[in-house]
Amino acid sequence: MTVFEKELGELKEKILRMGAVVEAAIRDAVASLVERDSDLARKVIENDHKINALDVEIDEECIRLIAIRQPRARDLRFITTAMKITTDLERMGDLAEDIAERAIELNEEPILKPYIDIPRMTEIARGMVRDALDALVKGDTELAMDVIKRDDEVDMLNVQVFNELLFFMIQDPSTVSRATRITYVSKYIERIADHATNVAEMVIYNIEGKMIRHLTPSQKQ
Amino acid sequence: MTVFEKELGELKEKILRMGAVVEAAIRDAVASLVERDSDLARKVIENDHKINALDVEIDEECIRLIAIRQPRARDLRFITTAMKITTDLERMGDLAEDIAERAIELNEEPILKPYIDIPRMTEIARGMVRDALDALVKGDTELAMDVIKRDDEVDMLNVQVFNELLFFMIQDPSTVSRATRITYVSKYIERIADHATNVAEMVIYNIEGKMIRHLTPSQKQ
Repeated sequence: MTVFEKELGELKEKILRMGAVVEAAIRDAVASLVERDSDLARKVIENDHKINALDVEIDEECIRLIAIRQPRARDLRFITTAMKITTDLERMGDLAEDIAERAIELNEEPILKPYIDIPRMTEIARGMVRDALDALVKGDTELAMDVIKRDDEVDMLNVQVFNELLFFMIQDPSTVSRATRITYVSKYIERIADHATNVAEMVIYNIEGKMIRHLTPSQKQ
Repeated sequence: MTVFEKELGELKEKILRMGAVVEAAIRDAVASLVERDSDLARKVIENDHKINALDVEIDEECIRLIAIRQPRARDLRFITTAMKITTDLERMGDLAEDIAERAIELNEEPILKPYIDIPRMTEIARGMVRDALDALVKGDTELAMDVIKRDDEVDMLNVQVFNELLFFMIQDPSTVSRATRITYVSKYIERIADHATNVAEMVIYNIEGKMIRHLTPSQKQ
């Protein structure tokens, strides 16, 4: 194994580590809402700087590898893709922070209804994040395609949550402030799944050079 | 001027051109809603492939420049930043397409109310996109900071639009389907402004190497 191969392996590991931290932030943010645990929410907010630091660290490492190793073709494409992917991961971290902020607000008021669809959406979104990064590291386009397909489920659940909460608001306008905040949480999770989809599309683009990023949903099937 | 300097200049021009196309798509998408012009909306949807093609073209050009010219330090950082920025521009194009889709749906039903805040939000967001790219090309961090500040105005208008439409829905549930679609449009514009903010943050990071991307809003002041 050359030095550069070793460095590339370490870069991949670092990306997976960042993914694991982001995934944990998403899990904890939603748990802080479902379990009404505002201390946990505050921990998510405080820990966001770790995700940001990993983003900068990976970015710097990529720049260094390009400058010093002068990688060509496949490796260069992998490194530039990695730089874009960590930007998506960093934004997922910001969304986890947004969820935690809404959780703190919601935990101060009486519970509106038990959370059912939101934990379901979260599980799907977290699986998408994990698999998109696995697909990157293993170069597995089929897994990446599968991630893209799952995005529809999250979108549907988000619409379902929105409609249900709208019904609450119309029936009883005193629920508006709480219900609105819950629709925001649902929307944040949907956006996390969108970022995972973006990552998966970039993985495919990176491996196959195909314009999957820019196919219409029906063409993707 | 070296060949590489000329190529870098062309790259900057291409990014500005992509920005202008994206800005026009945003303008037309919102115009198709405000002026109830579904033909214009369909034009926005059809033209999205041009934005996607520009994204791929700029990406390929960046990869080529890195591989062939082996840029160092400042130039390398500019090129990798450019690759990330076009991803944001491409996503703004997708959001313009989403606005156009909602416009077609809304244009088929009676008008709910005249659009006032949405055109205002759009003007601010478009200005943010334009100035963020100007800041990139001119290396103007002050302009980039100004873009970041304007994001708050868009966020506030989005909340205002949401609250107003919620009031409609509560007063008259028959407005739900239309009002919901308009809240989506407002949200899409807010996300366009978020992408412009991301671009501005990357511009500052690119120029100053500062961690502006990761400061809290209060620290940014």
